[in-house]
Amino acid sequence: MLLTPKDEIEARIGLLRPLMEKAALDGAFFHYKIDYYYFSGTTQDGFLFVPIDGPPVLFIKRELNRARRESRLERVVALKSAEEIRPYVRGMKRIGLQLDVMPYNMVLAFKQHLGEAELVNVSSLAKAVRKKKSPFEIRIMEKGAAIAKEVYGKIPEILKEGMREIELGGMLEAIAKPLGHEGLLRMRSLNYEPYTWHILSGRTGSIVSQADSPMGGLGLSPAFPVGASMKRMRKGEPILIDFGVNYHGYHMDLTRMYAIGSMPDEFARAYEVCRDIHYRVLDRAASGVIASELFRYSNQLASEAGLGAYYLGYGPHKVSFLGHGIGVELSELPFLAPRHDYPMEDGMTLAIEPKMVFPRKGATGIENTVVFENGGYRVLSDVDEKITIV
Amino acid sequence: MLLTPKDEIEARIGLLRPLMEKAALDGAFFHYKIDYYYFSGTTQDGFLFVPIDGPPVLFIKRELNRARRESRLERVVALKSAEEIRPYVRGMKRIGLQLDVMPYNMVLAFKQHLGEAELVNVSSLAKAVRKKKSPFEIRIMEKGAAIAKEVYGKIPEILKEGMREIELGGMLEAIAKPLGHEGLLRMRSLNYEPYTWHILSGRTGSIVSQADSPMGGLGLSPAFPVGASMKRMRKGEPILIDFGVNYHGYHMDLTRMYAIGSMPDEFARAYEVCRDIHYRVLDRAASGVIASELFRYSNQLASEAGLGAYYLGYGPHKVSFLGHGIGVELSELPFLAPRHDYPMEDGMTLAIEPKMVFPRKGATGIENTVVFENGGYRVLSDVDEKITIV
Repeated sequence: MLLTPKDEIEARIGLLRPLMEKAALDGAFFHYKIDYYYFSGTTQDGFLFVPIDGPPVLFIKRELNRARRESRLERVVALKSAEEIRPYVRGMKRIGLQLDVMPYNMVLAFKQHLGEAELVNVSSLAKAVRKKKSPFEIRIMEKGAAIAKEVYGKIPEILKEGMREIELGGMLEAIAKPLGHEGLLRMRSLNYEPYTWHILSGRTGSIVSQADSPMGGLGLSPAFPVGASMKRMRKGEPILIDFGVNYHGYHMDLTRMYAIGSMPDEFARAYEVCRDIHYRVLDRAASGVIASELFRYSNQLASEAGLGAYYLGYGPHKVSFLGHGIGVELSELPFLAPRHDYPMEDGMTLAIEPKMVFPRKGATGIENTVVFENGGYRVLSDVDEKITIV
Repeated sequence: MLLTPKDEIEARIGLLRPLMEKAALDGAFFHYKIDYYYFSGTTQDGFLFVPIDGPPVLFIKRELNRARRESRLERVVALKSAEEIRPYVRGMKRIGLQLDVMPYNMVLAFKQHLGEAELVNVSSLAKAVRKKKSPFEIRIMEKGAAIAKEVYGKIPEILKEGMREIELGGMLEAIAKPLGHEGLLRMRSLNYEPYTWHILSGRTGSIVSQADSPMGGLGLSPAFPVGASMKRMRKGEPILIDFGVNYHGYHMDLTRMYAIGSMPDEFARAYEVCRDIHYRVLDRAASGVIASELFRYSNQLASEAGLGAYYLGYGPHKVSFLGHGIGVELSELPFLAPRHDYPMEDGMTLAIEPKMVFPRKGATGIENTVVFENGGYRVLSDVDEKITIV
């Protein structure tokens, strides 16, 4: 099993410390799985404490032996009771907790052991560090891309007329998991639950849901009303497959279009517009244009193609992002969206997804995960981009 | 798509109100998906408000049309900004929020619109209502059991020597999903993430993890170190399959034992002890013995069989429950555990799981989901209980 190397963990904490200093924090706790894994290399039940001027301490409730094997941190200690953290925080005046995701009652319980310290939300610091990836992280994402390539490569043999969306979804998961796909796509969003089987055919591509996406799908029941459904896939429908992969905690996100028999002209044309937007935006991104401007530019391109009404959703269901960073979280900094006034930089990874939704008819579009490097970009999700007709 | 009927929703809220009255609450908000779905019938992005003396109001951020189709509540309104809740809570003195699961920062944001009201954690009230199931809920769980029966029925044809645990897990999911399995097992536990593929062979059955279970499995990576792994299944190993199903938001939990070629005597015998404990405990449960006493009794039976050291885990990894209620949450009231000093009652559903773990060798045991009714009990997870040798 691949473990996060010691120098990698040290580099991450090394990037965190100046941000802590700037925020005048004496120490910070990370309990939320995404960030906790990123800074420690383990997800065993516990949390990480980073003091501003001492070695990080990993407190483990369960399971200590596994945590010691998985984390390269030197101080991995058993925690039997929360009050054992008291000596570590004594005298501290400002302490970071992940207040955006820590339950209210848990914060109150923590507070009892933090003396008079002021509590500050520390999640934004973790997000800022994660915004750029190391070569180690890119290598893991390349492996995720290889898994995705193998999964997508099987679709032409599997996809058949009359098959249910969820049937295909289940089969793709069954292919992906023995290749190392964790099955979970992680995202910090209230009530979010992970799923990988975003398979939308014809009208289900135009159904929106609670998810912040231009298309949500029908899902299986009101209990989980997103993603693939019991709908059978038919000839001549656009079939959108957005199957994310999680390898060793790192995500890979991509979308390709399929059809049985033939793709309706309207969707084929809109797909080419999306693909054109995708590459024109990336070219500008590589030349240093800021994210908010890239978002605006993509809207302009969609409008010029006469498809502005359908771009990134229709009517009240339009979303306001064209791309999202991707790493240990499916959606993280950077964002191609309004108010994100910074350029892409070497080391950033981005899932860019220009998509079009036609009311009651369906959805089309493309998505790739790319890395910015050497002043340019490279597509990680290296899967044939032509519309596949089976 | 099956929807929760109006009278069902009304009955649930009817059970909640006296508990709110007892807690002196003027109103209560439910935002957490498990409880929000239970009381509203939808999971579209929003939250439910139940005033002590007026109709419940479902506030929907997205997607209003779907929420109106899915929920039988009469008042389903769009929420554009949180301050729109103000007129509904005016003058209220004590308001319930789900403080055990609502993020700290979200509570602070809510608080701004709740005037001077005292905030009280309301989750325990929802849990109390959910402790007994209605005939409608039992029918959904029976359907989940039928899915599980079909999935487990396929294992003998699929399981082969040399197959990876995760390969089998993926295949079982691929079978279950087109039958209606949501793929998610829901549980309110910090950093918990759902998975269904608890497939443990030989020594992986003795590996514990961050999960509160006598056995956790190895998983695929430190990012998600639970459940099925890349380990290949071999002849003569105990293979434990605990594949939960979620149908329309309701769970079904069961465990059966398998082996390729032959089951080692030690595990075959321990399995029979577990099965004996399972039925003797259920018989006593049906006669009105309280839960904590049933837990104690099961420990006594395991010790009498000379297997006390392995029962419900070994050494420091023993868990302190023999069974858990099950419904919209995988694990909920009632519990067969210390300090749960109440008897089982008609309408309760319980997953009872006596299991044994042998260090470095593996795990064995049985699990069934049962319903208490007519003063007795009925096994819902009706799958052959003999050890299956392939």
